[in-house]
Amino acid sequence: MTRTRRRPIGPPDPVAGNGLIDRRALLGRGALFAGALGTGLGSASAAAEPLADDQWTLEPGSVVPAYQMPSRFEKNVVRTLSNPKGEPRTSHARTPHHLLAGSITPNGLHFTIVHAGVPDIEPDQHRLVIHGLVRRPLVFTLETIERYPMTSRVTFLECGGNSAPMFSKEPIQASVQAIHGLVSCAEWTGVRLSTLLEEAGVEPTAKWMIAEGADAPALSRSVPLKKALDDAMIAVYQNGERLMPGNGYPMRLLLPGYEGNMNVKYLRRLKLTEQPAMSYYETRTYSPILPNGKAYRFFFVQEVKSFITHPSFGQMLAEPGFYEISGIAYSGTGRISKVMVSADGGRSWAQAALQTPVLSKAFTRFRMPWHWNGGPAILQSRAWDEAGNVQPTRAQIVAERGETKTVPNVLGFPSQHYNGITSWSIEGNGEVKHVYA
Amino acid sequence: MTRTRRRPIGPPDPVAGNGLIDRRALLGRGALFAGALGTGLGSASAAAEPLADDQWTLEPGSVVPAYQMPSRFEKNVVRTLSNPKGEPRTSHARTPHHLLAGSITPNGLHFTIVHAGVPDIEPDQHRLVIHGLVRRPLVFTLETIERYPMTSRVTFLECGGNSAPMFSKEPIQASVQAIHGLVSCAEWTGVRLSTLLEEAGVEPTAKWMIAEGADAPALSRSVPLKKALDDAMIAVYQNGERLMPGNGYPMRLLLPGYEGNMNVKYLRRLKLTEQPAMSYYETRTYSPILPNGKAYRFFFVQEVKSFITHPSFGQMLAEPGFYEISGIAYSGTGRISKVMVSADGGRSWAQAALQTPVLSKAFTRFRMPWHWNGGPAILQSRAWDEAGNVQPTRAQIVAERGETKTVPNVLGFPSQHYNGITSWSIEGNGEVKHVYA
Repeated sequence: MTRTRRRPIGPPDPVAGNGLIDRRALLGRGALFAGALGTGLGSASAAAEPLADDQWTLEPGSVVPAYQMPSRFEKNVVRTLSNPKGEPRTSHARTPHHLLAGSITPNGLHFTIVHAGVPDIEPDQHRLVIHGLVRRPLVFTLETIERYPMTSRVTFLECGGNSAPMFSKEPIQASVQAIHGLVSCAEWTGVRLSTLLEEAGVEPTAKWMIAEGADAPALSRSVPLKKALDDAMIAVYQNGERLMPGNGYPMRLLLPGYEGNMNVKYLRRLKLTEQPAMSYYETRTYSPILPNGKAYRFFFVQEVKSFITHPSFGQMLAEPGFYEISGIAYSGTGRISKVMVSADGGRSWAQAALQTPVLSKAFTRFRMPWHWNGGPAILQSRAWDEAGNVQPTRAQIVAERGETKTVPNVLGFPSQHYNGITSWSIEGNGEVKHVYA
Repeated sequence: MTRTRRRPIGPPDPVAGNGLIDRRALLGRGALFAGALGTGLGSASAAAEPLADDQWTLEPGSVVPAYQMPSRFEKNVVRTLSNPKGEPRTSHARTPHHLLAGSITPNGLHFTIVHAGVPDIEPDQHRLVIHGLVRRPLVFTLETIERYPMTSRVTFLECGGNSAPMFSKEPIQASVQAIHGLVSCAEWTGVRLSTLLEEAGVEPTAKWMIAEGADAPALSRSVPLKKALDDAMIAVYQNGERLMPGNGYPMRLLLPGYEGNMNVKYLRRLKLTEQPAMSYYETRTYSPILPNGKAYRFFFVQEVKSFITHPSFGQMLAEPGFYEISGIAYSGTGRISKVMVSADGGRSWAQAALQTPVLSKAFTRFRMPWHWNGGPAILQSRAWDEAGNVQPTRAQIVAERGETKTVPNVLGFPSQHYNGITSWSIEGNGEVKHVYA
């Protein structure tokens, strides 16, 4: 007991400023730590023998359902909807990252964007056509697709407009769901597109592939043939079960690491061409305009990025003491190689632990122990990928792309491909706010 | 065209008997292959420009929901229920492996066993007590648990009684869901149990840990302390979201690789002791009785196992030609090192491709290309793990454990820990039957 009392109150073995702790330093500190966490030691012995029974221990439970859903106590763990009445415009459903953990997004909560609602496709009637600059045009049913050799991979999908609020001149006070909710990660299973293209026989003049969906907008995007022959997939399963209707049921194009909009859902056509189609979405929404009035003609890759989900805006730190800083990192280029975390707004940094296995073009959960002393703190994360790319600061992105005075909408510019740092400020009362730092 | 016609009709580059093919041999065979798959070449050109619009392309879709669910056309992709009216007995909900792909089981379809229904636990009221041979007994709320450093891992959970029908004297004609549906795999996130036990301070005399649930049976099992201090976890998230009610909400014990029943759900108590409790489930249901009348006192590990999910019982092969044989392999001891597949009832074998990454104590999807010539075939898979364990044949298990004349129920013996080979026979009409071979 005496030894416990004599330990210093401050954080053990700091690795960077303002309370970041060496992970190994947590081991062997049990007692000191427990007190700080308020685990209710006083009542433990009394409670143990016998345990007081709660109501649910005294009555039979409910019938097991054929398809199970979250507890009624988790009813707030849902996607937020930009168009809940289904008006004739784009609908966004955002993933609640501040309420999730790990690296897989459950299918119920994978983000969705549709431009004319969710189509109700009969899988047996759906067809995929491959034509254009091929030796033999082909038609595939879902049943045919499933006859081919399959492959599975975990990969994130991110809307090119995810994090658009970060271009706002003032930091919007909104959750990580509102700011970064248009990215999710799942295990996808389907057929390598290269297998089907080989079967169709690609003509040497083909350089592009126009992908088109069967939803009402017949959304189409141009994909470099090189990507189509690399790691592209016709996905038919999502985390083991068939695709969700909001994620492309019965089949979608999957282009790991590429802008979400290009991963055409409800895929009904792949046409090989010499030139890109310059279709609606690739010339209007997804061509980021720069301050000098020029625009990126194409911007395919979702670049290296990270953000902290715990703690984040909307959460309260109950008291000074230990907290785990946790978040998500990913890169459309490959594996995450390193995530650094700062508790002092970027003045000092320490390396976070990465959850293994670290997969290419997939969410990597990072974690960093932190002792909050009750004073001001600004939490940031910054990611690197295996190709050597580093996540930029917000100032770097804004210098290149500009900023908006109000929260951008889909027509606001700049609003695309923000992959800069996000900063959360811890106020004296434990409140978490969004700041630019 | 001439070259195509002169190619042999039989399978290219066999790697084992009765049509197993080298994976690389599939490349460069496009045209031959396409014909065999019946991809409907004739209508492709006509269909391509313009595509005929289906009804769902001509009308706006439905409103995006806050929590999305599978398409109405997937209504048969559900768990089968042994107790759909919730009578006062055990309920089983089995995973439809023949309808799934990849290695993650979606949360809606993770298997469930409960002995008195699914409890409706208020997470804020739930408590976990750690007591017994510890220096300081502790009480944890869900909120407290979430303050600790978290970890995530993908692991399978399998009921010790999964595959019990395989002990039947005659092969039951039932799907892989009915035979092997009491195993699933998810990404779990929570707190390492070692962190909490260290905080409580384990007394040197402690050798066992009695885990008890808060459901009506207060289900309890004894766990060797060594396992508790190794890779055990108090899990609070399942594939990113909070645990499903049928899988232990709000918290469960996770003992990677150990019999499902020991992974106590609705966890409310961990009591450290010198001796095991010899509780109801560990002395009655989960002590496999041998033909000589003796029994295993404890049988913790779910041993190395595999089964083919595609094709499997209940499916029909439409025509001779190419099929991908695909299934699941796993071991409670570690990583799968190899899966061999046979198409001739075990006379010859070829090595299947393993989906990467191959994770310890997790589902590994295996795949093997196969050319069905329309004749009789018996498909089998056999797995090895990195510790050198090999999945036994059914004959080997039956020789050791015995067999039953009828389909065993939970009280039938032998009915536990079947990890032998499963055999699917392909009939001349393409029907898949269950056989012993």
